Amino acid sequence: MGSSYGENIKLTIFGQSHSPAIGMTLEGIPAGHKIDMAALNAFLARRAPGNNELSTPRKEADEPEFLSGMRDDVTCGVPITAVIRNTNTHSSDYSELKVKPRPGHADYTAEIKYGGSQDFAGGGHFSGRLTAPMCIAGGIALQLLAREGIHVLSRIYSIGGIRDNGELNGDMSGKAFPVVDDAQGMLMKQLILDKKAEADSVGGVIECKVTGLPAGLGDPMFSGMENRIAQIVFGIPAVKGLEFGAGFDVANMAGSECNDDFCLRDGHIETVTNNCGGILGGITDGMPLIFRAAFKPTPSIGKEQRTVDLSTMEETVLRVHGRHDPCIVPRAVPVVEAAAALAVYDALLGRRKEVR
Amino acid sequence: MGSSYGENIKLTIFGQSHSPAIGMTLEGIPAGHKIDMAALNAFLARRAPGNNELSTPRKEADEPEFLSGMRDDVTCGVPITAVIRNTNTHSSDYSELKVKPRPGHADYTAEIKYGGSQDFAGGGHFSGRLTAPMCIAGGIALQLLAREGIHVLSRIYSIGGIRDNGELNGDMSGKAFPVVDDAQGMLMKQLILDKKAEADSVGGVIECKVTGLPAGLGDPMFSGMENRIAQIVFGIPAVKGLEFGAGFDVANMAGSECNDDFCLRDGHIETVTNNCGGILGGITDGMPLIFRAAFKPTPSIGKEQRTVDLSTMEETVLRVHGRHDPCIVPRAVPVVEAAAALAVYDALLGRRKEVR
Amino acid sequence: MGSSYGENIKLTIFGQSHSPAIGMTLEGIPAGHKIDMAALNAFLARRAPGNNELSTPRKEADEPEFLSGMRDDVTCGVPITAVIRNTNTHSSDYSELKVKPRPGHADYTAEIKYGGSQDFAGGGHFSGRLTAPMCIAGGIALQLLAREGIHVLSRIYSIGGIRDNGELNGDMSGKAFPVVDDAQGMLMKQLILDKKAEADSVGGVIECKVTGLPAGLGDPMFSGMENRIAQIVFGIPAVKGLEFGAGFDVANMAGSECNDDFCLRDGHIETVTNNCGGILGGITDGMPLIFRAAFKPTPSIGKEQRTVDLSTMEETVLRVHGRHDPCIVPRAVPVVEAAAALAVYDALLGRRKEVR
Amino acid sequence: MGSSYGENIKLTIFGQSHSPAIGMTLEGIPAGHKIDMAALNAFLARRAPGNNELSTPRKEADEPEFLSGMRDDVTCGVPITAVIRNTNTHSSDYSELKVKPRPGHADYTAEIKYGGSQDFAGGGHFSGRLTAPMCIAGGIALQLLAREGIHVLSRIYSIGGIRDNGELNGDMSGKAFPVVDDAQGMLMKQLILDKKAEADSVGGVIECKVTGLPAGLGDPMFSGMENRIAQIVFGIPAVKGLEFGAGFDVANMAGSECNDDFCLRDGHIETVTNNCGGILGGITDGMPLIFRAAFKPTPSIGKEQRTVDLSTMEETVLRVHGRHDPCIVPRAVPVVEAAAALAVYDALLGRRKEVR
Repeated sequence: MGSSYGENIKLTIFGQSHSPAIGMTLEGIPAGHKIDMAALNAFLARRAPGNNELSTPRKEADEPEFLSGMRDDVTCGVPITAVIRNTNTHSSDYSELKVKPRPGHADYTAEIKYGGSQDFAGGGHFSGRLTAPMCIAGGIALQLLAREGIHVLSRIYSIGGIRDNGELNGDMSGKAFPVVDDAQGMLMKQLILDKKAEADSVGGVIECKVTGLPAGLGDPMFSGMENRIAQIVFGIPAVKGLEFGAGFDVANMAGSECNDDFCLRDGHIETVTNNCGGILGGITDGMPLIFRAAFKPTPSIGKEQRTVDLSTMEETVLRVHGRHDPCIVPRAVPVVEAAAALAVYDALLGRRKEVR
Repeated sequence: MGSSYGENIKLTIFGQSHSPAIGMTLEGIPAGHKIDMAALNAFLARRAPGNNELSTPRKEADEPEFLSGMRDDVTCGVPITAVIRNTNTHSSDYSELKVKPRPGHADYTAEIKYGGSQDFAGGGHFSGRLTAPMCIAGGIALQLLAREGIHVLSRIYSIGGIRDNGELNGDMSGKAFPVVDDAQGMLMKQLILDKKAEADSVGGVIECKVTGLPAGLGDPMFSGMENRIAQIVFGIPAVKGLEFGAGFDVANMAGSECNDDFCLRDGHIETVTNNCGGILGGITDGMPLIFRAAFKPTPSIGKEQRTVDLSTMEETVLRVHGRHDPCIVPRAVPVVEAAAALAVYDALLGRRKEVR
Repeated sequence: MGSSYGENIKLTIFGQSHSPAIGMTLEGIPAGHKIDMAALNAFLARRAPGNNELSTPRKEADEPEFLSGMRDDVTCGVPITAVIRNTNTHSSDYSELKVKPRPGHADYTAEIKYGGSQDFAGGGHFSGRLTAPMCIAGGIALQLLAREGIHVLSRIYSIGGIRDNGELNGDMSGKAFPVVDDAQGMLMKQLILDKKAEADSVGGVIECKVTGLPAGLGDPMFSGMENRIAQIVFGIPAVKGLEFGAGFDVANMAGSECNDDFCLRDGHIETVTNNCGGILGGITDGMPLIFRAAFKPTPSIGKEQRTVDLSTMEETVLRVHGRHDPCIVPRAVPVVEAAAALAVYDALLGRRKEVR
Repeated sequence: MGSSYGENIKLTIFGQSHSPAIGMTLEGIPAGHKIDMAALNAFLARRAPGNNELSTPRKEADEPEFLSGMRDDVTCGVPITAVIRNTNTHSSDYSELKVKPRPGHADYTAEIKYGGSQDFAGGGHFSGRLTAPMCIAGGIALQLLAREGIHVLSRIYSIGGIRDNGELNGDMSGKAFPVVDDAQGMLMKQLILDKKAEADSVGGVIECKVTGLPAGLGDPMFSGMENRIAQIVFGIPAVKGLEFGAGFDVANMAGSECNDDFCLRDGHIETVTNNCGGILGGITDGMPLIFRAAFKPTPSIGKEQRTVDLSTMEETVLRVHGRHDPCIVPRAVPVVEAAAALAVYDALLGRRKEVR
């Protein structure tokens, strides 16, 4: 059906860009966990727009209201629901878009799927704004994982072909533009501003690394760690590619290069390299879990584009107005962390059932 | 739990490399569909080993026996179960591997997950042999899709960095080595034989294209076409990357390049380009659905590798004996088709519920 | 996990008696259905307390706010979320109950399950108040079913051993006390008032009949109509028994009495009797689907009861204060209708996937 | 879809009465459990027909072959599949039944549902024979539960209105006719033989009691213990009613009678009575879990019955030939135990996820 995720937790995301509210329900979180609301709001703020000239100046009041599942910020074991009100829900700007689907958006496909009854305003349920509730759920999962020594790190890996250097090792959540090599980051930011000036946009890649994972998480076949992460990460709008460890490069390798030999370090089994991204047979091997997700450029651009007028069935042109992110990647970094945390936490709960 | 897939169909794959049998149960196929068993067996034969010098000379009798769900080869609406007997189930060769996990395999992670009770022989449930039952289910789905005008095409896109040329357009299932440009194919085959001679292996990329799809298939967020395909394709052993349409290249594009403009062709809405791989907002747009999956090199190689002896917890070396595919990619082509067909068929059934 | 229901729709109910709000998310309703909000609110009013002397004088403002999934009261195909605010959420009255679990309530079992972190106030997530969101979802399902000619009728079948007479045939939703034989209804009401005067309570049975069903709904084994209805009806607090058609009486019958012979009526196949309650092999046979659910007496009674003080682990006594329904059955009638409608609608969507 | 059950385990049952085999796949059983195959076969033998004059003289070779999921009778953590061959699969006797649906059977409803493509022979997937694979799965669950001190007891509670006396306390699995009061048992057996002589059949009630359960199992709303048990027990053919604890009698009680007061026994919290059947709010309270299921009389009877010829659409008569159980209840006792064990084991695995 689409908007639900999880085997051992069950996340459901609801809302449209211009409905009274957006929100999420998260079932399966054990009782008794204190949620640090200040930390959660700080996490959500990383996703919020309007932080700087790289993102849309549109303001969103993203602070969630928890309707259920908590008492004094402690989980009580039953479904947790949180909502964010949509303060600006008038849909006046969208009359043109109702008949002229925007290239790169879900306008046309949703029109077909919902037989003309979609809530087209602002992208409806397909709006990037719906990543905010995913971050509420993911922000909770991040806190629970951290208490078990599991941390989710991420960075901007590339923007428009400009790559970061170095390896992702520490927590970058404090950086407004999370790259290891700030010189490369400067180039990326300049490219984003250039595209903004051209009324265009640009894509990029986000890298994510989960540390502190025990070996043995994940399940064979369709619930391997790759599958679990893929199912949620492809739920982030604009993601068109996903790779683990050495990723697409494995296709160019010999087995003797690609295989990660086992070794002992401080008495523990590790692998010498980590081309598998910490996953063998879908199951964590105790090394960091590493993946990268490719984001397409923001489809909302000011440049003129061709489209078809659905009311007249004639070709026409369209110029998307409004304030849009010239590059969604910086704001998507915490969303990827949220997604990873939810996938990992789900697998962690599943692991508990296996104790004999 | 892992070995089950689907929202509207439910596929469960069972068996280990050396258990009495492997097989699958497929629930949710409507009654009244005649299955062409000869065509199904021909499809399975494409996955079978021993067809040529590029694959392992190991022989497998992969003809399935249908235990339930059919009467006179017509589906009767209840769960379809088919099994393939494992004729050679003695596990004598695997005593060394019980304590020396093979690099690149699930031996170590399964040992941790199953607390020492895994069926290690031949990779157990993680063996590539378990793709045979996936092909039984997928072969059925392919037949049902073809009756609705939906076809799944695929090719070897690259091997060890050698790329095929041209575009995937027609059915390649008749080719032993399915590439568009046979000259490139010759180079790929030579590389595989070279690696075989070196007791090594090599990886590659498979491209898949689904044609004839109506617009409107798939669901938002976590059940989009990308998510559905990802969840099953990452269930094929050795897949480490997956991309749709322009894939990772979208990260290097400007929005004005990446967006697929809408146009009219013969009165129908199409897109001028297909960088989105036929999917917008998780939903098909009526253009061909395109994806590529990256396969790592076969981890079983004859070269000496480092590992850890789990019984003594000392570093040691290992040389994997036996007959293994120097490159799994050619045999994986029908497996990718099977996976794609199952994902698409599942979405197709889901679409039927939406009629108002 | 508990608070989610459905195969083809997905209902999730959230909230606690004293959380900021209670509500529901309903996924899988096709787009394009206009919901009659006045009719929905009228349906919800039937469940609301305070309507007459038979129910608690406690007032609840049960009008739902729809946060998502609708535009101008028309479903847009994505998750529908509606909430009801809890206006009186101070928990002062519940301090005694935190340590003294009430007999017949979930206080003790929730205390164990949630390890001391349950939201005990007012029964938390186990409160009968959570049937209000079930009625929002069910009220929507009832409207959609009615458009397909399917109607859900129900009545009070018995209270405290006093049985209604006659057969349930027409719509009773307009009656404040829905029985066929009002003379029996008077006796039932008097019994409820007597029990109220004694600071006690009384149980009863509700009968439900679904008419207009096509033959062929439901699935074998664990998704038969009985299973689907059972899974949701036992989710209504206080239900301890459920029977279909002749129900427990079948155990006393001979096969020749119990079997429903097939016959022709107006050219259609019907059954002469309906001991099977319209269900054979889990699948509807085209006759009315009939079931009865047994409700225990309201566990909150003013009489002194024995319990154990969890803080001192000593036996003690408890008198439940506050305003409670002396009999929950009259207010549970629309809840049973809601549950039946959701189960039937789910099966109806599933049926659409079977078209070949 | 029907033939799958479970949240934390996943049971799928496949096969038809006359397909090559019937069987089951059980996913989610942790690795490392030794299964006592002799005990499992002894359990299955209790369900097998032909044991005495009360059951059909038809012989079934019900010994399962395990195809996967075990090594040396020890679970290895991956899906367990077991099959039973159908040795007598010729369908010659069923040509009349193809057009004349038997009253009380699923013949007609399956004909509608599967659009004429059902496997009608012997009841197809709806045959009582399909309870054999449920017993394989349940027999495994019973062994695993016993190792945690949880035992499932059951008895024949009544046959054709003749009730057993006394309370179900000990293990009755050694008795061919499991009743507490053998004098009542004699009356029941005589009634069965009388009905057999009349070419008729009779129904009955089975009572089941699960002891040794910890408090805290089960989940709110739709995954309470009642819901879980109901979803599987209504999957046993012929069940038309289900009640927990005092069951339908709660409808006749006052709250002061029905509520189970809490008390201390040997320092543990117990309830003085057990009208709730060990379940409050869907969650176990540590007392025995008690339920009763009502079975309709075997619908296959030798007496003449009315039906409709589907080929001519004319009313006709039918006499069901063959050897059938005059009462299915004695053979259904282990099936109910199997169902209860699976529901409880599923809840037990779910409980493990809640540890904070």
